[in-house]
Formats: sequence, structure tokens, C-alpha cells
Amino acid sequence: MLLQESLHPSLTDPILDVMNFLNEVALRFPEAISFAPGRPNEQFYDARQLSSYLDEYVRYLSQERGLTEPQIRTQLFQYGRTNGQIHELIARMLEKDEGIRTTPESIVVTVGCQEGMFISLRALFSKPDEVLLVGMPCYIGITGAARLLGIEIVPVPEREDGLDLEALEARLRALQAEGKRARALYLVTDFSNPSGRSLPLPARRRLLEIAARAELLIIEDNPYGFFFREGPRKPTLKSMDDRQQVIYLGSFSKSAFPGLRVGYAVVDQQVVNATGKRHLLAEEFSKIKSLLSVNTPSISQAIIGGMLVMHGGGLLEANREAIRFYKENMDAALQALERHFPRNEAWAQGVTWNVPDGGFFLVMKLPIEADDALLEQSARSYQVLWTPMRYFYLGTGGEHEIRLSCSYLTPARIEEGISRLARLIKAAVEQQPSRTLKAS
Amino acid sequence: MLLQESLHPSLTDPILDVMNFLNEVALRFPEAISFAPGRPNEQFYDARQLSSYLDEYVRYLSQERGLTEPQIRTQLFQYGRTNGQIHELIARMLEKDEGIRTTPESIVVTVGCQEGMFISLRALFSKPDEVLLVGMPCYIGITGAARLLGIEIVPVPEREDGLDLEALEARLRALQAEGKRARALYLVTDFSNPSGRSLPLPARRRLLEIAARAELLIIEDNPYGFFFREGPRKPTLKSMDDRQQVIYLGSFSKSAFPGLRVGYAVVDQQVVNATGKRHLLAEEFSKIKSLLSVNTPSISQAIIGGMLVMHGGGLLEANREAIRFYKENMDAALQALERHFPRNEAWAQGVTWNVPDGGFFLVMKLPIEADDALLEQSARSYQVLWTPMRYFYLGTGGEHEIRLSCSYLTPARIEEGISRLARLIKAAVEQQPSRTLKAS
Repeated sequence: MLLQESLHPSLTDPILDVMNFLNEVALRFPEAISFAPGRPNEQFYDARQLSSYLDEYVRYLSQERGLTEPQIRTQLFQYGRTNGQIHELIARMLEKDEGIRTTPESIVVTVGCQEGMFISLRALFSKPDEVLLVGMPCYIGITGAARLLGIEIVPVPEREDGLDLEALEARLRALQAEGKRARALYLVTDFSNPSGRSLPLPARRRLLEIAARAELLIIEDNPYGFFFREGPRKPTLKSMDDRQQVIYLGSFSKSAFPGLRVGYAVVDQQVVNATGKRHLLAEEFSKIKSLLSVNTPSISQAIIGGMLVMHGGGLLEANREAIRFYKENMDAALQALERHFPRNEAWAQGVTWNVPDGGFFLVMKLPIEADDALLEQSARSYQVLWTPMRYFYLGTGGEHEIRLSCSYLTPARIEEGISRLARLIKAAVEQQPSRTLKAS
Repeated sequence: MLLQESLHPSLTDPILDVMNFLNEVALRFPEAISFAPGRPNEQFYDARQLSSYLDEYVRYLSQERGLTEPQIRTQLFQYGRTNGQIHELIARMLEKDEGIRTTPESIVVTVGCQEGMFISLRALFSKPDEVLLVGMPCYIGITGAARLLGIEIVPVPEREDGLDLEALEARLRALQAEGKRARALYLVTDFSNPSGRSLPLPARRRLLEIAARAELLIIEDNPYGFFFREGPRKPTLKSMDDRQQVIYLGSFSKSAFPGLRVGYAVVDQQVVNATGKRHLLAEEFSKIKSLLSVNTPSISQAIIGGMLVMHGGGLLEANREAIRFYKENMDAALQALERHFPRNEAWAQGVTWNVPDGGFFLVMKLPIEADDALLEQSARSYQVLWTPMRYFYLGTGGEHEIRLSCSYLTPARIEEGISRLARLIKAAVEQQPSRTLKAS
């Protein structure tokens, strides 16, 4: 028998329950319409594709890379290079799809983007005066990882148009006054999880300047960048980064599929040691990665590799259908919200939502508290799931907000789901007039 | 530009270079005969098997588990249960192959055994007075992971027959006197990496008793247990563990293949929280895992799942040929050592080696220093690779020892490799008579 208090203290932090909530809630209520997890839609997947991609990668290794059959067997089955075997293909993809120019040696192929977050934090943080800045509300993958490593997190509020740069500058000044050091800032630049917000282009330029002055590294996480609803796409911070201030985290979970668990980090920063010798920060990442997962599964890398080769080096074109699908889903959600929350009805007056330019998520503000009790009622009595926004705040915040993910459904299910949500909220508002008044 | 000293201090610890050395040395000297990495042999692998295993898993999900086609697609392509989807199959395998009885809920499917080590350490260690005991010499995967988390490591020496239990008891008393707490002991019970040693059966019983008295958890790592040279196999600590003192770490890297990166942990300990409610430690593991890798790649799990189903639930029988192969390799190495290091020749007099009952590794003692310079000379001039044993010690130890891994070669290559090794050592001994005298 072990006492809970004898285990690592992060394990009783509510943040650490949220990842599993997001990952597993759909398994607990399989019949409900789920706006909860940020999952890609499965209609684009076909088990028969797997072997075509594998075959294509084998053909590439043989014909384009000149590997012999035993060498290919080693590549597929054996332990491999810690930082990955498809780093060259990923470098090529980044130039084609994102205008990011980097070297293959700067790329670390990770077990999903999540491993990239964990490695980044372990590499960069070691002293008690160092803090991690995050836009608030924030994806739980980074705040949870910081908790596991005992790293202090300092939130910077978001505005309607993304990270509040005034607030960032004020925080940096305040930290300096306190004798603390802002070591890195994590943010999702495009269609953020959970808020759906994107940083405007001029703010991106200004953020890079602020970071340069403050010697602040930026951890840019970009899982949703392909899926714009209103174009044109904005350049990533990394594509504008001429001073190696940005560690860029990418994922194949949305552009390919999550079951592979393949992501990558672009880590082109130079590290200089005591004797003045330089090397890439990516090499330091490989030391940490070797102690987490040894290397990213080669079968997963081979499937992504085959996919990249088959689609001419990039995945943007191959995702055209998915991009249209997610756009239509978001459109359907926004239209259904207009229809099912009529502005002229009293119960719906305190309900508002944002209109993201793309991605998987939007945020609704409610005139009632969006707590676990409401979610339980929603799941059991209305068969509709969503995520309380307070899960994405540290301490207080988001108590009257919910996150809707529109990615995992069809327009017809979205319509039905929003109608169920309207019935839930109408009932809850009308049963609790005092709470409505308090909140509005 | 980042200063090395601004990064996590573990990154300058020599331990952290060793994993990549082991993982990548064979890539740097592809033509050399390599006794260095503990890799399984590739002759048992066939790319065509991959799709048969996938097909078999799909058939199992459909016919034996009753899943519909869309449910199977979710299982294969989507994010999934954090602790894995083949936990029931693994529980069945453990009973069949190892006589370990456990529940599927106690099993955490991990990204290789390495992730299981990291999660175990993060879950169990949080206070500065807690130390991790390890048998010395020790596998670098656990000591490296402890360094990443700033966990103090206390070595317990091995004797020729495995962990020295007298020394363990003395260490436990000394730690108690110092006000420190031995939280867990890591060891490879069978055919240890790097020493090749196994703990005798009576010592296993006594170790469990010592652990019970000291409230010490044991992290038992068993990657090589299948591969016995002299039978019968000994029972694992976990199969004898009726007090939930053992966290058992398993790997499919040797019984299936490394490129999948699938391992598992058996974590059946009960945790009791402040209100007296109990739950499995495996649930705490899932919180940590969700922040490292979200879940183990489903494609990798599906291939292992299909393999388990196809082979009737276990893998021991399916590994008969591999077991014989590794036995013959170890026999070949031992015979080649006898032949190429003749006892009647002066230069060979200080050379000895152990005779493991199985596994991949044996250890040679040399009359010269087995340092990086000798390894470099060995690789370049003799085209033969091995691992300096000092890599597996903390501080001093192993300076005159080398680890030979016999798994990755054929008997003919082993013969040639040992003959090259003999030429290297003969030349080195004869060139450095003073060092020989010093060491012998």
C-alpha cells in the first residue's frame, strides 16, 4: 500500500487529470455527440493505405537512397538513430509546406508533439528562478509537463486577437524586478488550443522583437496550421525567425493520423560549451530522448515517410479535402449556434462565442457555470460532450466558458449536437435564474 | 546562442552520452564487427510479416472482441486509451509465458521499456531524501533517467552471482542512519545488462523479504529472460511477489522487434489517498504517460497484438528458434575466447571472462585499461566494437573491463570478432608492459 502523498506531488494536481479526460472521455460515453477531444476526423483513414505507405518508403530507401535489403530491414525493425530516420524528408516538407528552411540535423523526430514539449522543458529548465510563460488559457500538454518537472508557470493573458503583448512586456518587467528569468514562452500561433485564436501578422513580428530583447526562447506549437477557414495562411513564427529564437513543434497527428504518434521539433539553436565549441541544441535533445523512448518507432516513421514521398514531399496538398472538411464543420457549428441560440430569447442572451479563422476549436461563454456537474448532466441527459474551459486555466478563469471541438463530427451531427447543447443550456438557465443573474 | 551551463545539468553528465553511443555506434562504423549494442538479431524479421500481424489483430478485434469496422478504424488510427489497448493480451501472455498473474488494469503499455523506467521514477520520487538503489554495474537507461529527474542514485555492488544482498542490507542500514530513504531498487534479475549475471533462486526469495522489511519497491526489468543458455529458467521476482512489492518492466524489443518501441509495466500496487480511497498505481502512471507520449502508437500495439494472437497468446514458443540462436552465439563466443586467449601465453594471462547462463552479454577483464582510446583503436585498426564497462559505473569502476554483446552476430562473425579482439589486446598488452604490470 502506497500513500498518495508519498508519490510525486504533480499527481494530485487537477491539470494531470485533464489529459486523460480529453484522451478518454469519448471512450466513456461512446454514444454521445462529442465536442470534447480535439481529434481529427477518421473518415480520411483507410487501413489499406498503411501497407502502400510502407511499400512506398521501402521503395524510396531502395531506389532513392540506395539501401540494400538488409539495410532496409535494419531501418524498419532495429533500434535506430535517436533523433529519427525521416529528418531529411521532414526538412523538405517544412520548406515546401511552411516556408521553413532548416537542416535535417536540426530536426528531432518525436513520439508525438507531446514528447517534443517534454524534451524542450527538460533541456531548457534547471534553476528555480526560471519560469515558463504560457498564453492563458493554455493547452494542458505543456502545463502538465511543466508540473511533472516542477517548473514554475507564469500565465500571460490572451485577448480576442491572441496573446496580449502589452501584458507579456509587463510580465517580463515584473519578473525581472522579482529576480526571476523568463526562459521560454509556449504558444500555439494559429487556431490555438483551446481558444481557437490566431496571432495577427504584425503581432508576430513584434513578438519576435520582444523575445530577442528579453533573450526569451519561443516554443511554437503548430498542430492546426493547415486547417484555415478564412485565408490566407499567416507565416509561422519559425518561418520568420532569423535569430534562432523559436523551437518549432510539429505534429503528424492531424495532417496524417494520431495512432502513429509522430511529431517533430525543429531545434536549430547553437549551444556553446565552456571551451567555446558549438553544437546544435538538437544534439542535447537527443540525449534526453534516448532516456524517454530511445527512438521514435521506425514503423511509424516509415508510414509518415512513405506518405511524404507519395505526396511529392509535402502534405498540404494531400490535406485539401481535410482542410475543406474542417472548414465546413466550423461553418456548420457557427451557423447552428446562430440558429439554436436566438438572440431574441431571454435564456440565450448571455450566450456568446468567438469566430475562429480555422482550426478545430471555438469557445462559448455561458450565463451559467460550466462545471463538472453541468458536464455530467450534459453527457447523461443530453448525450452531448464538451470541455469546461476552466480545465485550461491555472487557478481561476474560464468558469463560464466551454470549448467546442468541431473536428470529430459531421455537419449533421454538429447540428444535432448544438441543438442538444441549446436544450441543456436553456434548461440550466431557466432552472437557475439566480446564477444567470450573477454571471451576466 | 545558448550557454551549455544554462541547460539542464544532466546534459553534461557522461552517462547521458552512453545511450546514444550504444544506440548509434553501429551506425558510425557499419563495417566493423560489433559486440557493442545489445541488439536482437535481425535474421528473424521479415517485412511481409507486418501486414499478417496487422490483419490478425483486425480479425481478433472483429471476431473475438466484436468490434465494428468504424470501431476498428478508431482503434488503429485515433488517439486511444492512455495505458494502452493490448493490456488484456499482455496479461494473458504474462500468465502463459512467465507465470505472472495480474489484471489487465494493472498493465501500462509503454513506448519501449525505457518509458516505463522514466514513468516509474517520476511517480515514485519527489523528495530530496529519497534515493534509488541500483545494482552496480548498471544499465544506463535507469541511471540516465534518474539523472534527468535529479534523483540520487546509490549503487549496490554485484557479486559473481548477482546483486550482493549483504551489501544491500548494509546500504539500507547506512541510509537509515543518514536520514535517507531507499525508495526503490532497480535490477535486471536474469542475464543482467551489462554483467550477464542472474540472481540465484534463494537470493530472489531473500531479496523479497529484505524489500518487505525495508518497505522498498523493486523495479524488476526483464528484457532477456526468454534467452536462457542453461536451463531451467528461474521464476521472476514478480511471479513470486505476493505483497505487490515489484513493479515489473517488460519489453517486446527482444521477443518481437525494437522498431515497434513497445514495452509494458505491471503496476498492481494500491495507492490510498487522504480520504482512504484506493486505486491502482497504474492509474497514476497513466497521468504521467499522457504527458510524455499521450499513448503508445496503436499501429505498434496492433502488430504486437496480432503476433500474440497468432502465437496462441504467448511468445515463448514463437521464440524457440531465437532462444537456440542466442544460446549458440553465447556458446560460440565462450569457445572462441578459450581458443584465442590461450592460458599458456603471457599476454593472455590477465584476461578472464564470466560464463553467463543466458542473455546477450558477457564481461571480460583485461590486463590493460579499456578506455575510449582503446575502443577507438579497436574500431579503426581492428574493425571490432565493444563497450567499455566503465560506462556502466558511477564514478569509478570497470576501468579494465569490457562488455561483449553476442546477440547481433552469427557464430562465424563472433569467431572472427574475438580473433580481432585478441589481436588488439595482444598488441596493446605487449606495447604497454608497465600498464599490464600495474593492472594485474
